[in-house]
Amino acid sequence: MTGGNGAIRGAFFDFVDDPWKHVGNEQVASRFFADGLLVVKDGIIEDFGPYEEVSKRNAGVDITHIKNRLIMPGFIDGHIHFPQIRVLGAYGHQLLDWLQSWIFPEETKYRDRDYATEAAQHFFRALLAGGTTTCQAFTTSFPVTTEVFFDEAAKRNMRVIAGLTGIDRFAPDDYIISADDFYKSSKALIEKYHRKGRNLYAITPRFAVGCTEAMMDRCSQLKKEHSDLWINTHISENPTEVRQVKEYYPDCCDYTEVHEKHGLLGPKFTAGHGVWLTNDEFRRFSKAGAAVSFCPLSNLFLGSGLFRIGRATDPEHRVRLSLGSDMGGGNALSPIRVLEEAYKVGMCNNTMLDGSVNPREQDVAEAERNKLSSYRAFYLATLGGAHSLYLDDLLGNFDKGKEADFVAIDWSAGQDAMAWHQSLTADASPNTVEEAAQLLFGVMACGDDRNIDETWIAGTRLYKKGEPDVMPAMA
Amino acid sequence: MTGGNGAIRGAFFDFVDDPWKHVGNEQVASRFFADGLLVVKDGIIEDFGPYEEVSKRNAGVDITHIKNRLIMPGFIDGHIHFPQIRVLGAYGHQLLDWLQSWIFPEETKYRDRDYATEAAQHFFRALLAGGTTTCQAFTTSFPVTTEVFFDEAAKRNMRVIAGLTGIDRFAPDDYIISADDFYKSSKALIEKYHRKGRNLYAITPRFAVGCTEAMMDRCSQLKKEHSDLWINTHISENPTEVRQVKEYYPDCCDYTEVHEKHGLLGPKFTAGHGVWLTNDEFRRFSKAGAAVSFCPLSNLFLGSGLFRIGRATDPEHRVRLSLGSDMGGGNALSPIRVLEEAYKVGMCNNTMLDGSVNPREQDVAEAERNKLSSYRAFYLATLGGAHSLYLDDLLGNFDKGKEADFVAIDWSAGQDAMAWHQSLTADASPNTVEEAAQLLFGVMACGDDRNIDETWIAGTRLYKKGEPDVMPAMA
Repeated sequence: MTGGNGAIRGAFFDFVDDPWKHVGNEQVASRFFADGLLVVKDGIIEDFGPYEEVSKRNAGVDITHIKNRLIMPGFIDGHIHFPQIRVLGAYGHQLLDWLQSWIFPEETKYRDRDYATEAAQHFFRALLAGGTTTCQAFTTSFPVTTEVFFDEAAKRNMRVIAGLTGIDRFAPDDYIISADDFYKSSKALIEKYHRKGRNLYAITPRFAVGCTEAMMDRCSQLKKEHSDLWINTHISENPTEVRQVKEYYPDCCDYTEVHEKHGLLGPKFTAGHGVWLTNDEFRRFSKAGAAVSFCPLSNLFLGSGLFRIGRATDPEHRVRLSLGSDMGGGNALSPIRVLEEAYKVGMCNNTMLDGSVNPREQDVAEAERNKLSSYRAFYLATLGGAHSLYLDDLLGNFDKGKEADFVAIDWSAGQDAMAWHQSLTADASPNTVEEAAQLLFGVMACGDDRNIDETWIAGTRLYKKGEPDVMPAMA
Repeated sequence: MTGGNGAIRGAFFDFVDDPWKHVGNEQVASRFFADGLLVVKDGIIEDFGPYEEVSKRNAGVDITHIKNRLIMPGFIDGHIHFPQIRVLGAYGHQLLDWLQSWIFPEETKYRDRDYATEAAQHFFRALLAGGTTTCQAFTTSFPVTTEVFFDEAAKRNMRVIAGLTGIDRFAPDDYIISADDFYKSSKALIEKYHRKGRNLYAITPRFAVGCTEAMMDRCSQLKKEHSDLWINTHISENPTEVRQVKEYYPDCCDYTEVHEKHGLLGPKFTAGHGVWLTNDEFRRFSKAGAAVSFCPLSNLFLGSGLFRIGRATDPEHRVRLSLGSDMGGGNALSPIRVLEEAYKVGMCNNTMLDGSVNPREQDVAEAERNKLSSYRAFYLATLGGAHSLYLDDLLGNFDKGKEADFVAIDWSAGQDAMAWHQSLTADASPNTVEEAAQLLFGVMACGDDRNIDETWIAGTRLYKKGEPDVMPAMA
């Protein structure tokens, strides 16, 4: 892989395991070096550990010292819509109305390469400014949007997943793509982009309300012909949508069965939202190795509902989870803002599960799993997201051999009250994992994109707050 | 009143009525001048209207032209905790646990005048940076905290409401104040501060869980002795709290009756939260002219629940409403962030009220009232908040004779995607009320404190983004 060379010195925080496996002892899932060194060669991590040890093994390496920052793996956004960057946060009714009045009209502009290219500059800059280094993105039903997306990601050398986004009903006529055209265009795009540089391709049926049987059959065919591909879609976001799926697929007992029936539910399959998944559906997701992308900004902004974090993390039926901004249903791109809202969703769930409203709903264990500590939260944003997307062999933490995408977090930036708040925990760079985790909770509770000071892709710094954009010097 | 002199030219947006009274035609409740002029004398609005007219009537006045900004009345925070500025966004369980583990230990530090004074610099700077010009604040049970609060507000010439915050159970021993000491200290503080400069005094029983009958009786006595005072407390924030109140006050049928029984529920009474108020309680609040301060940041952060906006705004039993940050239960001071979360609460309520989950819960009219358009939202943050707090004779809009507190909003600031988003509506300063309202929706949906470019108190600019603090030159 093309990428940067050299070493980064600073305070490092990443994950080696799932904190939900270590209730009451979550810090064992994390790894912290108050003074660490990360050695990068051609964009790949070659060595990592305490500065004192690693620097001896790598004498002469060119070191960049990032002081008073917490260096973490880059954030992973499991569910985002590239062509909604301009209409994020649009006023509307719920999901289905909002799609018709705001989203399809805007996305239709992306049939134009120039518009899509202009949009991509805004989109990728905003991603990097938020600390997102990898995303799984929806595009449009126009192949050119997907081409622009992959071309622009490649210019920045970013690891991304995307694919032509199929919809053959429930959209304006000039936005719809037929199942056959979807199949043909998908084949061409797969050929041109999949595993070229850091691009990965996802078969992308938009959502079952917008996809006929014919479209789902074509997706099924594509997966059979290209078993290496990812699959990206939506599921059970809104109760009206769920009911509509039951009307469109009367032979399926629930929304999940639509995907099971077409052989899609399995590894590398991600569905966004899952707010209204039943307990039975969670169990089938778990068993299949399929993933849900939890999109709290969007679920609150569109009023879709409260995702049951504690249910999805049941150790007996653990579902792979990533976090998604779902921008533009989500009203921000910042994964830090996603974590803030994720914490709130967990807290609201718990006021039901504590039994104080309805004693029959009490579930203390599920309530405990709903609580998003900073360990759980930043795990989801990094290694957990990578695991969910079957990318953890490539990235997600600072293990040797992984791709060197990372962010430098300024824990004191943001709203005016932030710095004094954080001074309760530490006046200088954290010395212990507990201090680091406490500062990170301050970031997720009170922070936003302002806490991202630098974003590095494959060992090259592409973003520094307050400085002009840089593009990597490609080999 | 001491204050600035001169005139401000720019685009002005304020309210003259309640948008909920004008369903489908909300803009008639607002007032917009694309090019307006506001003339201020000694901090009071002397003239206001279109530039062309007003400038003729005020020849020779010194004009400050604020370009490419939307000038609005300063925001009103109906519920905020001064001594929680450093612990905002603390990780915790729900309300009662969070109070014990984070809040009381921090608030106890405010028995020290120096600590409280240092905190006040952070607190007032953060208020102004968020665009808040008036707040109703809780202090602590130590009289010195209330003294510092009023002294520091007076230095900035800000219109504030606060009072010694009484709690005589459910707190550490060294934090508790006896009902008699509370009464005596309140009397002294009322004498010293009420209606001195812009300070207003509120009798402040913290919340019924923390107040014995004796404490409530003393509050009752204070109100009888000083009928001009405000009353500020909490109500029905969390289900466990509600149940605890029923145990402490077995002769009261519900939480509201605790306040009725002590003669407190009436004009100038505000209770924060009201998440779990029954329909009957809402009706009694309405009839009494009492107010609820809706605190969505906090209600989500502590998982308290979803406030029923549409129920509180039932035209037959309309409850006076302000918005509260409830910082530190709320994880930000910015009223713009409060509006974002308020919108989300309304949207989540509606997914219940649309009948798609449970057809028996369908209520289309209530659902409509839950939708927080930018008219409704910014009304609550300005004139609506003033009306709720019985301050609308003094401030809340740009009517002649009112106090000249205002903000200049930069609708394109904030997260990276913001400026391009707003360019969908207008490339330059808005020309129509609809454009202005659309830009304001963008601000509340995607913005934060970064959208506040300037904050003026009584005709003097106290805050300009990116510039050092200024204090007014007092007469």
